[in-house]
Parts: sequence; structure tokens; C-alpha cells
Amino acid sequence: MNAVLSLSDTNDFVAWRQARQDAVERALERWVPANAPAGLGDAMQYAVLDGGKRLRPLLVLATSEAVGGHAAAAMRAACAVELIHAYSLVHDDMPCMDNDVLRRGKPTVHVRFGQAQALLAGDALQALAFELLVPGDGSMSDAMSARLCRLLALAAGADGMAGGQAVDLASVGVALDQPSLEAMHRRKTGALLQASVTMGAATGSASPQTLALLAEYGACVGLAFQVVDDILDVTADSATLGKTAGKDAAADKPTFVSLMGLAQAQAYADRVLAQAHDTLRRSGLDHADTLHALADWVGRRAS
Amino acid sequence: MNAVLSLSDTNDFVAWRQARQDAVERALERWVPANAPAGLGDAMQYAVLDGGKRLRPLLVLATSEAVGGHAAAAMRAACAVELIHAYSLVHDDMPCMDNDVLRRGKPTVHVRFGQAQALLAGDALQALAFELLVPGDGSMSDAMSARLCRLLALAAGADGMAGGQAVDLASVGVALDQPSLEAMHRRKTGALLQASVTMGAATGSASPQTLALLAEYGACVGLAFQVVDDILDVTADSATLGKTAGKDAAADKPTFVSLMGLAQAQAYADRVLAQAHDTLRRSGLDHADTLHALADWVGRRAS
Repeated sequence: MNAVLSLSDTNDFVAWRQARQDAVERALERWVPANAPAGLGDAMQYAVLDGGKRLRPLLVLATSEAVGGHAAAAMRAACAVELIHAYSLVHDDMPCMDNDVLRRGKPTVHVRFGQAQALLAGDALQALAFELLVPGDGSMSDAMSARLCRLLALAAGADGMAGGQAVDLASVGVALDQPSLEAMHRRKTGALLQASVTMGAATGSASPQTLALLAEYGACVGLAFQVVDDILDVTADSATLGKTAGKDAAADKPTFVSLMGLAQAQAYADRVLAQAHDTLRRSGLDHADTLHALADWVGRRAS
Repeated sequence: MNAVLSLSDTNDFVAWRQARQDAVERALERWVPANAPAGLGDAMQYAVLDGGKRLRPLLVLATSEAVGGHAAAAMRAACAVELIHAYSLVHDDMPCMDNDVLRRGKPTVHVRFGQAQALLAGDALQALAFELLVPGDGSMSDAMSARLCRLLALAAGADGMAGGQAVDLASVGVALDQPSLEAMHRRKTGALLQASVTMGAATGSASPQTLALLAEYGACVGLAFQVVDDILDVTADSATLGKTAGKDAAADKPTFVSLMGLAQAQAYADRVLAQAHDTLRRSGLDHADTLHALADWVGRRAS
């Protein structure tokens, strides 16, 4: 895959990405409360700050920029999506779930702060995500707040991320076929990645046709993300990933690699990525370069 | 306290309460998805249906009725608040928190479905609460959706319920003074009880002065609820409570009874209750009978 020139290596994209990652980091520092009582703020900040690629916030911001959206609303939406992602990692790492001790190269939240505090920090982060979408200061229209809250709630809940995690738990040792595996990931990781795109779009105005194509682009990015995740789980080491490598195989979880083999999984990721690019081209958006580069960044990443 | 005639014993209130409890139950049955994947829907329904006094929904509905609010929006708000309450119980009962096996007379969710499913069911219930507040079908105004989401997020998060639980965890074996104990409960249980009132008010229109007095009434009901909770923890048995009695004392948690003794705690509950009634009277609302009765129902309950 390294032979293919990736849009994500261009200087423009690298500069855009770093600037937006910095801005997201500063916004999260401002909005995740350090002073929440009894150490809760410390656990929340630890769970959120200084880590991760901020893929979901970048998708929100790039989509918002592509549709000429409201910049301040997009930053709130970007951080809200990241808080949902961060809380899901905190809970997912707990002993009763994946029981993982390493995340983004650091001890997981429950290792550092104890399980009770990790549980509460995750719960509080989910509430904070929705709080961010309704500033209460007139800086966003009520219509935009309502639309963003609905998209986020649907992506996070039983029909989205939480439901996907339940299927994931129930799939240990089960030989899923490709449609079932994709249905699981469409919920578990795909829903929030797709919501990152649709929420970014909701901060501006776009035709129903463009919205539908952006949603399809988001679904492709979500699927490519997961296929590559499964590939990296067997090809990368823990230091590169910043989390425990090989854990899906160790846990006997179905993956795209276990289903179709490494070479076929790579070819599938490439096809899905090509579909993401094609969908974007059909959207007719004038400023979609960053979204093209983000798709490559997801599909050709090494960690 | 039984010598005082309680407004909550009147036939009108009992009929109102039963009708609203039935309506809330039917709405929750409709909105909590039985078909969420991999058993998640079963765990969510088990956590929510067929149990509890539905105090928070009743506060939402009674306040909405007192201010002439939007009935359909009030039912959504009532159920949203109950879902937040239900998820907090599921997580609070888990082994890493209070490690309780009995709730509403039934095995707790993690005992019945396992810890991982309990964790996910709680997470999904929180997302569903926000989803209910933004129906997406035009049945509520965006302004009302946004206002309700903000009130609920603030009550549930680090400044509200989750923060209070963190303080509660940190208070085991600590001799809190009365202001600290009240500050903890204002977050842990008070914030959501007060939000039940303010969200009910937000489904209608009320003057800023009336809103402030309703919020004060909600704070009094929240405090009375907790003082009586502490009293019942030492005076009632597990069968009556439907949960483990005596567990605060066993866990060496500070309570109003440990702080001031049983008789003084009862006198304090009576004073707070009188303040709730007085505040309501000052609100000048014409249709506050049910809110008066609800305050008595909280302050004079036996379980």
C-alpha cells in the first residue's frame, strides 16, 4: 500500500491537520473540567487530553469546512464526538469489558484512578458531550443544537456504538460472516465516525443529495477504519499502536483478517477507500480536498 | 410524623399519581427498545420497567401541568429523567461501586445480565435519554429540545449527579459536616430531582420569578428526599425498601442520621418539607396542589 501516493502526505493536509488537532486540544482543555469534585475532573482530563489522533474531530471540522459551516458550532460538535469516543474507551478498557491496561501508551483510566472513578468519569464525559452541544449562551441556534444532539444520541446509543459493543461482546468465539461482521462494526465504530461527518454537515447547509453522499462517505471511512484496525492488530506492535496489539486474536474475536486473510483484507480496505473517494467526487463539493486526504489518512495509517 | 395529615393521602392525588405512573410505564415500554442487539435491549428494559416510584417523572409531569406545559414534551422529559436515574442505579450497583445485588426487590442488572452488559445498558440508557428529548419529528420545538437537553446534561454530569457520586465515593469513613454533606447530596440526588422540576417548567412558560421559586422547591424536595432516605436506611427493612437496608452505616458513609441523630434528622426533614410548601405558595401558581402533595409523598414516605 505504500507504493500508492497518499493525499494525506501533502504539506497542505499535514499543516491543516496539525492546526486543527491543536485547536481541538485547546478546546478540550477548556471544556473538560479540571475542577470537577473528588478527583473526577482529573480522571476526565486524563481520559481525554493529550492523546489520540482526533480523527473524529477532524472529520467534523473538515466536513463543516467543506459545507461552509458554523466554525464555533463545529468545534463544539468535534469535541462532543471526541468525548463520546473517549468515554467509550474508558468503559471498554475496564476489567468487565476488554480488561486492557494500556491505551495511547499510558495506563488506562481504571488502572490509574480505580474502576469506580473510571466508570463515573465515562458517565460524566457522555453528559458533557451533550452539554457542549447546547451552549446556552446564544452562540448556536436551537435548531442546530437539537439536530446535533439527535445525531450524537443516535450514534452513541443502542442502535449505534453501545449496541455494537454488545454485539462485539456476544461475538467472542463466534464465526461471523462478512455481513454480520460489517453490521457489528457499522454500529460499534462506524456509527460515531459517520456521525462525525453528518454532524459536521449539520453545522452548515447542504442539499439532501450532498448530505446523503457525505453520510455514505462517512460509512466508507468507518468501514475502512475498522478493516485497517484489524490489519494493524496483527501487523503492528503495541509500542506503535499505543495499545495492546494482537488482542483481538487473543480474545478469539472475529475480524476482517480472520475472515478473509491479510492480503484480501488489505485489498478490501483499498476498495472501500476508493469508494469513499468516489462518493466524495459525486457530492460535487468544491472544498473536499481535506475530506479526501482524511480518508487516505484513515485507510493508509500505520498505527 | 404520622400525626400530620399528609396531602399525599388524598384521593385526588392517589388517583393522579396512579394514572401518571401508568402513563409513564407505557411510555417507557414504548421507548426503551426491546430489540436492541445481543441482549442489550433486555438489560435496558429490565433496568427501567416495572419498578420504582417514578418520583422524578411525576415531578416533571406535575410541574408541567402546574405551568400549563406541553403534555407530549413533558412525557418525553419525564422518561428522559427516569432513564438517567435508572442508568445511574445500574452503574451504582456494580461491584466496583456499591456492589449491591438487590434493587427494587429484584437482582440488580449486573447480577442478572453480567457486568459488561450492565455497563453497556447504563451507557445506552443515558444516550436514549437525550434522544427522547429531540424527537426529530417536529412534535417539540427546537428551543424546547435544546433547553431540556441542557438542563438534563448539567444535572447528570460532573457538576451534578456524576460529580456527587464521586464525592460520595471519596466520603467513606469521612466525618462530613452538614454543609459538606448537603453539597454532596445536592449533586448526587438533588440535581436530578431539581432538574425534574425545572424541566417540567421548561415545557411551558413561567415568569423568571416563578421559575426561580420552582427551582427552590425542587431543591427542597431533593434535600427532603435524601434526609428521609438516610432515616429509612436505619428504620426500614430491606423487604420494605426493595433494596439493601442499613448499607450506608455498614459502608461507613456519612448520613444525616449519623451527623445529627434520628430525631433531629426527622425534625430537619419536616423543616425542609415546610420550606418546600412555603416556596410553592410564594410561587403564586394556581395549580400547585399536586406539587404540594408530591412534596409530602417524598417527605413522609415509608419506603
